[in-house]
Amino acid sequence: VADQVDARALTVTVLGGTGDQGQGLAYRLGCAGVHVLIGSRDPERAKRSAAAIDAKVDGLVEGAGNDEAAARGDLVIVAVPWEAHEPTLRDLTEQLAGKIVVDCVNPIGFDHRGPFRIEVAAGSAAEQAATLLPRSRIVGAFHNVSSSLLMDEQVDDLDQDVLVLGDDRPATDVVRALADLLPGVRGVFGGRLRNAGQVEAITANLIAINRRYKARSGIRITGI
Amino acid sequence: VADQVDARALTVTVLGGTGDQGQGLAYRLGCAGVHVLIGSRDPERAKRSAAAIDAKVDGLVEGAGNDEAAARGDLVIVAVPWEAHEPTLRDLTEQLAGKIVVDCVNPIGFDHRGPFRIEVAAGSAAEQAATLLPRSRIVGAFHNVSSSLLMDEQVDDLDQDVLVLGDDRPATDVVRALADLLPGVRGVFGGRLRNAGQVEAITANLIAINRRYKARSGIRITGI
Repeated sequence: VADQVDARALTVTVLGGTGDQGQGLAYRLGCAGVHVLIGSRDPERAKRSAAAIDAKVDGLVEGAGNDEAAARGDLVIVAVPWEAHEPTLRDLTEQLAGKIVVDCVNPIGFDHRGPFRIEVAAGSAAEQAATLLPRSRIVGAFHNVSSSLLMDEQVDDLDQDVLVLGDDRPATDVVRALADLLPGVRGVFGGRLRNAGQVEAITANLIAINRRYKARSGIRITGI
Repeated sequence: VADQVDARALTVTVLGGTGDQGQGLAYRLGCAGVHVLIGSRDPERAKRSAAAIDAKVDGLVEGAGNDEAAARGDLVIVAVPWEAHEPTLRDLTEQLAGKIVVDCVNPIGFDHRGPFRIEVAAGSAAEQAATLLPRSRIVGAFHNVSSSLLMDEQVDDLDQDVLVLGDDRPATDVVRALADLLPGVRGVFGGRLRNAGQVEAITANLIAINRRYKARSGIRITGI
């Protein structure tokens, strides 16, 4: 089903698009020919970030304030820091109504012993998004892809899968098709939204693996 | 380091060794030439289960009651159902003192919408084991390997990694070497024990993937 969706025809907004993960996704989607809108609280910063990426890609990458970027996107990726997740989404409920909203936020903290999962009252960032945006179609995805790999222009095979979580089957199909646009990536249905928490949190394990093995690790699902 | 450990020289006990996961691990370790003790509350049931596996493997597979099996093992794998996790370990604190205890229990429930993560007060089954067994060396591992694949004698390449979690580095090295004995498996250090919860819970996602893709899925870590 995912390959029947023309994800290239979508205008994709990336909220938090000036951060590492957001820039990385904007770059890879832009490479695939997608029209990308980078959203930021500061419109000028968004425009500068977008211009830098636009110069490298086949698609069209523009920048705007969060309000405008959310309103103009067909599909909206949330790539803000965990601390900004709730206030950002609370401000954009109207702009995001009716749209597919892809949450890729990982509630992870760091201390002297390394990375760890932050407990979320709603169960996960994705479920918190579903609570804050009851009129949007919430999907969780892109949690485990290293931003360093995404931004590395020398890497043309990301060699990993993107787990796509959600209760709205057609919405997960669209996001799987979007993930398929990244080089070396398969979008794999990964379960319902209530099982998003562990996919977000396992990013802490990947960070621990990166430290131990001096790597930029990812996850492949075998047997499918 | 893991390849400097001779895991074949260990006597490995599998508590809950008459269940699917326990039998599967006993079979694969037995195939690798390991001396395996299957533990069960019912010694006769353990002996029957062990005899069935012993007939198929290169190693020696024996059965015994939990007490005896725990006492005789050099390393003890806990593969009991989640409901039995606390009472089983509470009864064996003395027998397990000083030993490497490998927790592979997944606190997962099922309802009409499929599998889901069960919240654990300690954070994870592995951390609950650490609380119950303060004198043992707790490691989390083997959470994500399909028991059906483990038991399938036609499968000679499991094609996945085993994430090994723990705060006792030498203990995780031993368990990585043990995981390396499974065909097509790498034992990969996956972080501290406090990051075990998401590795346990992601088994719910793999079950959802199995249902969607009619598969027996597993996880590979890429980039290392």
